[in-house]
Amino acid sequence: MQENNEKDELIEALKKCEAVKFGQFTLASGKNSKYYVDIKKAISDPVTLKKISDIASTRIDLPTTSRIGGVALGGVPLATAVSLKTEIPLLLIRKDAKAYGTGGRFVGDLEQGDKVILIEDVTTSGGSVLEAINLLRDFGANVDEVITVVDREEGAEANLWNENVTLTPLVKASDLLKDK
Amino acid sequence: MQENNEKDELIEALKKCEAVKFGQFTLASGKNSKYYVDIKKAISDPVTLKKISDIASTRIDLPTTSRIGGVALGGVPLATAVSLKTEIPLLLIRKDAKAYGTGGRFVGDLEQGDKVILIEDVTTSGGSVLEAINLLRDFGANVDEVITVVDREEGAEANLWNENVTLTPLVKASDLLKDK
Repeated sequence: MQENNEKDELIEALKKCEAVKFGQFTLASGKNSKYYVDIKKAISDPVTLKKISDIASTRIDLPTTSRIGGVALGGVPLATAVSLKTEIPLLLIRKDAKAYGTGGRFVGDLEQGDKVILIEDVTTSGGSVLEAINLLRDFGANVDEVITVVDREEGAEANLWNENVTLTPLVKASDLLKDK
Repeated sequence: MQENNEKDELIEALKKCEAVKFGQFTLASGKNSKYYVDIKKAISDPVTLKKISDIASTRIDLPTTSRIGGVALGGVPLATAVSLKTEIPLLLIRKDAKAYGTGGRFVGDLEQGDKVILIEDVTTSGGSVLEAINLLRDFGANVDEVITVVDREEGAEANLWNENVTLTPLVKASDLLKDK
């Protein structure tokens, strides 16, 4: 019940800052969609960012979590806000694999055995977050949970599950479309 | 007086999280230095990040500032924390000029005439922040102030002043070295 109220509040906040719009949209992939997510509107609006991070923080098991991870660039403000709220150290993961060595892709300390929770802005197939998870696991960190603000429900949950990672969406596409 | 107390507290916090170390260091440039700054230690430590953003927020004229800007990647957690504290919208500036068009380098809304204050982690010559300032000015935004956590006092202040930008350092190299 608490989670449902939070979800409704979050959907209202996403609509208000125009991070979510409804109508008839043609996506870059050529597909049609009844909604459009521009999550940058939410990240750059501090009131909405604070609401997201407050809710995301309630989904984290604080005592067992060593690092809050964000993949550049969209995940970084989200992970920063959650790190500030929970006081769990921040870890940033650079996106450009070519320009940095493996160790150089992490900003912030990371040790073998650290438990990292990743915060994502939008998940579709989950490909970009899976790449970060593999990098973290290769280093020796434990990653078994990703929190995403909006899951478009286009494969990310199953693709992460296949790699023993739970996806925790704050809002799903079907939540956005339930009254449409 | 208030600013001096804040500065001493900030220096203590930077030492405690090992963002600042003292000794004999050879920098990448080949120069010798009596101190070493690893600002990523401060950014990834939420208690220190909060202290920095609390102090930086007191240096901002809230009514006239439209955007808090951060240059990827190090400036992003700092700008996010200041945006959350001041409730002024966030603007991120991507670093890789080649991979994005001019408009594509901004994450967050920006309008002509917006006044942007940039938050930097460390300034040396100021070259990277000047590149971002030129991009913002070309777009039609106003930028006349940069807040930096640590100024190494190696040219940034004068180089920015030549472009009509005031550099506001929370800590200078000479502050770090005053009792050494």
